[in-house]
Amino acid sequence: MNETLVTVVGNVATEPEMRTTEAGVGFTRFRLATTARRWDAQRGSWADGPTSFYTVRAWRTLAGHVKESVGLGEPLVVQGRLKIRDDERDGRRYTDAEIEAVAVGHDLARGVSRFSRSSL
Amino acid sequence: MNETLVTVVGNVATEPEMRTTEAGVGFTRFRLATTARRWDAQRGSWADGPTSFYTVRAWRTLAGHVKESVGLGEPLVVQGRLKIRDDERDGRRYTDAEIEAVAVGHDLARGVSRFSRSSL
Amino acid sequence: MNETLVTVVGNVATEPEMRTTEAGVGFTRFRLATTARRWDAQRGSWADGPTSFYTVRAWRTLAGHVKESVGLGEPLVVQGRLKIRDDERDGRRYTDAEIEAVAVGHDLARGVSRFSRSSL
Amino acid sequence: MNETLVTVVGNVATEPEMRTTEAGVGFTRFRLATTARRWDAQRGSWADGPTSFYTVRAWRTLAGHVKESVGLGEPLVVQGRLKIRDDERDGRRYTDAEIEAVAVGHDLARGVSRFSRSSL
Repeated sequence: MNETLVTVVGNVATEPEMRTTEAGVGFTRFRLATTARRWDAQRGSWADGPTSFYTVRAWRTLAGHVKESVGLGEPLVVQGRLKIRDDERDGRRYTDAEIEAVAVGHDLARGVSRFSRSSL
Repeated sequence: MNETLVTVVGNVATEPEMRTTEAGVGFTRFRLATTARRWDAQRGSWADGPTSFYTVRAWRTLAGHVKESVGLGEPLVVQGRLKIRDDERDGRRYTDAEIEAVAVGHDLARGVSRFSRSSL
Repeated sequence: MNETLVTVVGNVATEPEMRTTEAGVGFTRFRLATTARRWDAQRGSWADGPTSFYTVRAWRTLAGHVKESVGLGEPLVVQGRLKIRDDERDGRRYTDAEIEAVAVGHDLARGVSRFSRSSL
Repeated sequence: MNETLVTVVGNVATEPEMRTTEAGVGFTRFRLATTARRWDAQRGSWADGPTSFYTVRAWRTLAGHVKESVGLGEPLVVQGRLKIRDDERDGRRYTDAEIEAVAVGHDLARGVSRFSRSSL
C-alpha cells in the first residue's frame, strides 16, 4: 500500500557488487544513470536534460542473475520500489534515491541479448 | 524519451508556495511525504516503512489550481516526471528528488472533494 | 508480485454507480476515457490519438467517496491495478480493460477542488 | 500529454513476428501474458489471479533486436504506451490492449542474459 513503483531506463554507472547481509541474504548493488531527452518544440530538435542517478539493489535470485549478466555501461530497464532515503553521517545529511528491483532486463532498444532460463 | 514517469500517493508536507520565474512563468512548489506500508507475512500484519520526501513543482494553470486547492497535510495523488538532482552549495553536495507534476488530485481514498472545472 | 500498476489521466465517461457484492462489500464502477495527445514533429503541432476506455472499480471507503465526489465528464487521475479480462457470453468473446483503483483524484490541471478529510 | 505509460512483467505468448508497413517501417508484434500473484492475508499464502494478455508492438531498431533476441515463452519486462483499441469487424466488436514498446528486456529474475550492444 502506498508503495511507489517506478521503471527507469538507463545505463549502469558502477560495476555491480554482490554482498551478503548479516542474515545471510545475497544482494547486488549498482548505480543507474538516466538522461531524459525531450522534444524542444521551439527549437524543433531533441535536447538532453540533466542526468539522474539511482542506487539499485536486487535481492536473492535476481541478485545472482544481475551479477552474472550485467556489466558497467550496459543499458537496462529496471522496475522496482522507489525510496528516497535521508541519512545523517558525521553531521552531514545525505539523500539517496534507491530502487529495490522487482524486474531487471537489458534494454533491447540498444542491442541484442541471449537469454537462458535459470534451472532453479 | 527515457523520461521517468512516477505516481506518488502521499501527504503535503509543506504549505504550497507560488512564485514566478524571471521569464514570468508561474509555478507552485511543495514537499510531498509518502510512507509505504507492506504486508509482513512473517508477523501477519501491516508494517510502516521509512518515509520518502519529494519536491513537487507544478507549472502554469496547474500551479494556480494547486495553490488555490491544496493545503498542508492533505492527501494527494501526484503524477509527473521524476528527476534526481545533485547540486553543490558551499562545498556540500545536496541531492533532491523532484517531480515535475503532470496531474495532481486529492486522494479520494482519504476523503471527499468538490470539483469545479476551470473556465479558462 | 507481477501486478501491473497503471496511472490513467482521463475523463469520467459514465455516471459512477455504487453496488454491493453478495458478501456485502460496496464498490463503485464507472468508465474512464483517455485520449493521448502527442507532439507531431513533422507537422509541428499536437495531434489527438484514439481514445482508450477503461472500467474502473473502487472498493469500500474509496467506493463511497468516489460516488459522493465524482460526476459524469469530470477529469480524474486514477491509479490502480490493471487487468485485461476475457469473458465469453452467448458465444461471443468480450475483452475489457479493468482498473482496480488504489487512488482516485480530480485532476487539478483542469480545475479546482475543495477537499474534506473523511472522519472515519 | 495524457499518454498512459505502463510496465508489464510477463511471458511471451506467441512467437514474435516481424513485418513492414506500407511506408516501409519495420515492426515486430507478439502477445505478452502476465499473471498477478497476490498475498492472501486470510489464507496466509500467495494466490494466482487471472491472466492478462497484451499485444506488444516494437518499431524500427527495437523491432529488429526483439525479433533477433526473444523467443516464445521467455520472460520479459516491457515498458510502453498503453492503448485500449475498439474495432468492429463483421458486425462484431473487438477490444484489444496494445503496448507500443519503448523498452523491452529479458527479466533477470528468471534467468541470465548475455548482451551485445548494437553497432548502429
